[in-house]
Amino acid sequence: VTTFLKKITRFLGDNEWIDASNSNLWSRDWLDKFGEIPIGVAIPSSTNQVSNILKLCYNYEVSVIPQGGNTSLVGGSVSNKKGGLILSMSRMNDISSPDLIGRSVEVGSGVILENLHKELKKSNMILPMHLGSQGSAQIGGLISTNAGGTHAFKYGMMQDLVLGMEVVLPGGQVWNGMRSVQKDNTGYQLRKIFCGAEGSLGVITKAILKLTPAPKKQITALVSFNDINSLIKVASNIRSEIDEFITAIEFFSDSGLKMIEKHISGFSIPIRNRASFYLLLEASTSTEKISLESIFSFALEKAMKGEDHVDAIVALTNKQRAQLWRLREDQPEGQRLSGAQLKHDISVPPAHIQSFLETANKNCQRILKGVRINAFGHIGDGNIHYNISPPTGKKDFLNTDKDFELMIAKLAAELGGSFAAEHGIGTSKVDLAETLRDYQERDIMRSIKRSFDQKALLNPGVVVHEKD
Amino acid sequence: VTTFLKKITRFLGDNEWIDASNSNLWSRDWLDKFGEIPIGVAIPSSTNQVSNILKLCYNYEVSVIPQGGNTSLVGGSVSNKKGGLILSMSRMNDISSPDLIGRSVEVGSGVILENLHKELKKSNMILPMHLGSQGSAQIGGLISTNAGGTHAFKYGMMQDLVLGMEVVLPGGQVWNGMRSVQKDNTGYQLRKIFCGAEGSLGVITKAILKLTPAPKKQITALVSFNDINSLIKVASNIRSEIDEFITAIEFFSDSGLKMIEKHISGFSIPIRNRASFYLLLEASTSTEKISLESIFSFALEKAMKGEDHVDAIVALTNKQRAQLWRLREDQPEGQRLSGAQLKHDISVPPAHIQSFLETANKNCQRILKGVRINAFGHIGDGNIHYNISPPTGKKDFLNTDKDFELMIAKLAAELGGSFAAEHGIGTSKVDLAETLRDYQERDIMRSIKRSFDQKALLNPGVVVHEKD
Repeated sequence: VTTFLKKITRFLGDNEWIDASNSNLWSRDWLDKFGEIPIGVAIPSSTNQVSNILKLCYNYEVSVIPQGGNTSLVGGSVSNKKGGLILSMSRMNDISSPDLIGRSVEVGSGVILENLHKELKKSNMILPMHLGSQGSAQIGGLISTNAGGTHAFKYGMMQDLVLGMEVVLPGGQVWNGMRSVQKDNTGYQLRKIFCGAEGSLGVITKAILKLTPAPKKQITALVSFNDINSLIKVASNIRSEIDEFITAIEFFSDSGLKMIEKHISGFSIPIRNRASFYLLLEASTSTEKISLESIFSFALEKAMKGEDHVDAIVALTNKQRAQLWRLREDQPEGQRLSGAQLKHDISVPPAHIQSFLETANKNCQRILKGVRINAFGHIGDGNIHYNISPPTGKKDFLNTDKDFELMIAKLAAELGGSFAAEHGIGTSKVDLAETLRDYQERDIMRSIKRSFDQKALLNPGVVVHEKD
Repeated sequence: VTTFLKKITRFLGDNEWIDASNSNLWSRDWLDKFGEIPIGVAIPSSTNQVSNILKLCYNYEVSVIPQGGNTSLVGGSVSNKKGGLILSMSRMNDISSPDLIGRSVEVGSGVILENLHKELKKSNMILPMHLGSQGSAQIGGLISTNAGGTHAFKYGMMQDLVLGMEVVLPGGQVWNGMRSVQKDNTGYQLRKIFCGAEGSLGVITKAILKLTPAPKKQITALVSFNDINSLIKVASNIRSEIDEFITAIEFFSDSGLKMIEKHISGFSIPIRNRASFYLLLEASTSTEKISLESIFSFALEKAMKGEDHVDAIVALTNKQRAQLWRLREDQPEGQRLSGAQLKHDISVPPAHIQSFLETANKNCQRILKGVRINAFGHIGDGNIHYNISPPTGKKDFLNTDKDFELMIAKLAAELGGSFAAEHGIGTSKVDLAETLRDYQERDIMRSIKRSFDQKALLNPGVVVHEKD
């Protein structure tokens, strides 16, 4: 260890190496649930440095945990054993000027998503990736967890937005895949393999991302329902009417709204007639010549016809739009402030959402009577954050946490969906994957891991179990 | 061999096994350029049969060449050595009724693309994948070559349209990845790894594909230019104007048109003022409420302002639209009928198209004076089919074929693009990949191949060199 520390501090400057004793900011995850004390934190500022760090760690068999914004919800960005090296990518944060004809931008993997959003405003382009943690989440982490978010049903996940990348492999070799074309069929799609690999196959240092023109007009609407089935139908109907304009289809419930009202001050709810569920719709156009208001209003009315809704409001100004979005975006924070909770990130084919919710709700009451359910998320792609708070008056779940997790995960899988929709499996869901996915699938993953990382040094414990 | 044949004919029926002597339909590729005589052709009709065939081949060390519509242009679908078994997937051709809410359809890998297009018409959905060979190409082959085609810049390649799949692995084990959700981050993205793997990692037996609503209105336009740079600018301008409506951006040249006129009878060219290059644009909407004609015409006029175009026509009826599309679609056939040709399938970032064409044209004349260039393809994603015919009066290229191939491939790679944009590398471009891609990249691919297919039995010789 002493020799290793001597060597690594030789090529990392004073502010590029953080001692174990000062590593708390990096070593614990933001739920403060995961993370052992590392050997130290390296904060390199060049690919060459990353390569040298990985070479040294390879020789000394020190495990490496690549870290972006450290916003993982599944223990994917901190060490699950003492003595690993945390590799913070935050200094690799260059943003090139975008290629406006090819519609792409080259970024360092340490660029924070929100900073990229701001930078792109200058050129009227967007990276259509929006999620709660965008103020902290970094591009490398977003790629490594194959992030989804609110606009994925329309624009895809990170794997659909990555054209090229540069990756440092476990032994320190650098793979240069910085090509900025969509069509590149020169063998296996390496650029896709690193998407969702949770930093276990290589360390992403740079990426070329696909851009979209910024919308010229946007409209947001909120519709309240007592019947979730009507909500799902209206969401499907409006897509059939004006598919190319719909850019977000979100839902949340009144129980979530009540938590926000109770715990977050200065909150106003603009809809008059509240109901059990809310559908948040967004339409966008890149064309000035279109009357988005009239097209959207007409389509919404048609979509709601015969469906049992309670109230509907349409926001035209940016201020009104932001107000509606806040109702959806503050759901996680409202629940966090309400005390203990269990988070579940599942997806089912959209046609099975109702069936999932009905069965899950019933089963939840069987596991622990009085438990309070707060489901919200992305109707468009069937991705539901099915969160649970303890029964009124209780502080926790009386040791039933694992029962909820398995019941919900199993149900999603049985309906043809996933128990790790957009957050990944990290270290916390590997056992679940071993239980619910067939042996073939897990075995292929183990052999992929081995073929990239023979010594099992890169983010050990995520995706597959490390060697004994 | 005799024991193997005895065993395989025991579980394959009479019309499910074709002897070597009758295998010509399957053993040669459609350019009649590649393909050795196989041990025989198996045409199974169930996943179970595929699994049994692969088990047997594994035990007897017989190599297996999975075959779809056999339309590969790079020797990817036939055997490059005597004695392999060709596995034709054409009987695995079930199409389920589509899930209209989740927007997906389950298909056997032997379904022909055009048949799927026809079937989907009944439910007003489309699989937005269109290419010249769609009358023969099968879903499994399209996934395995990660097909692109004319609408890829808008809707993505096959890898973007696949939600789930079932794959038989080299030893006969079946991987069940038939999940119909977009968001599924339970470890490595196996569904993406098989896209573009050219049948070298497993045999795809079923897939779940992502659908899009059929357009309600469409417009096609043709604009002629003498200056390729103006053409590129207009293509970029119109996307900036009405991005969400543009569904095809193709180009071709007058030299290609002349070949069609000469060799294909009954051909009419509707544009009055011809010029060196043509831009074919298509706009679509899923919304009845929009006046696509006026929006498109206005945007086209604005996009052409200040750019040096010669003529422009807009087609509104399906018949007129088909006539314009034929000018583009018959380019390969016109050139094929003109005699010897060299085909190149490259992509460059769209901002570099002009520079690519200028340099390539100049270099071509250096390699062989008088050589005739016919470039056409997909401006939207920078994918150019840069085809070459011999100088007038010459029958071939006087042994300069490889010089052209290397020059063009190298130029595309240097400009940040690809020398195998949408056709794959098959067996014919593996050497090119070894020359032009760095060692790291080729090495990762070799280790991926080994981790799936230890005995190197599955489509040996494609993507990476087989073991000695």
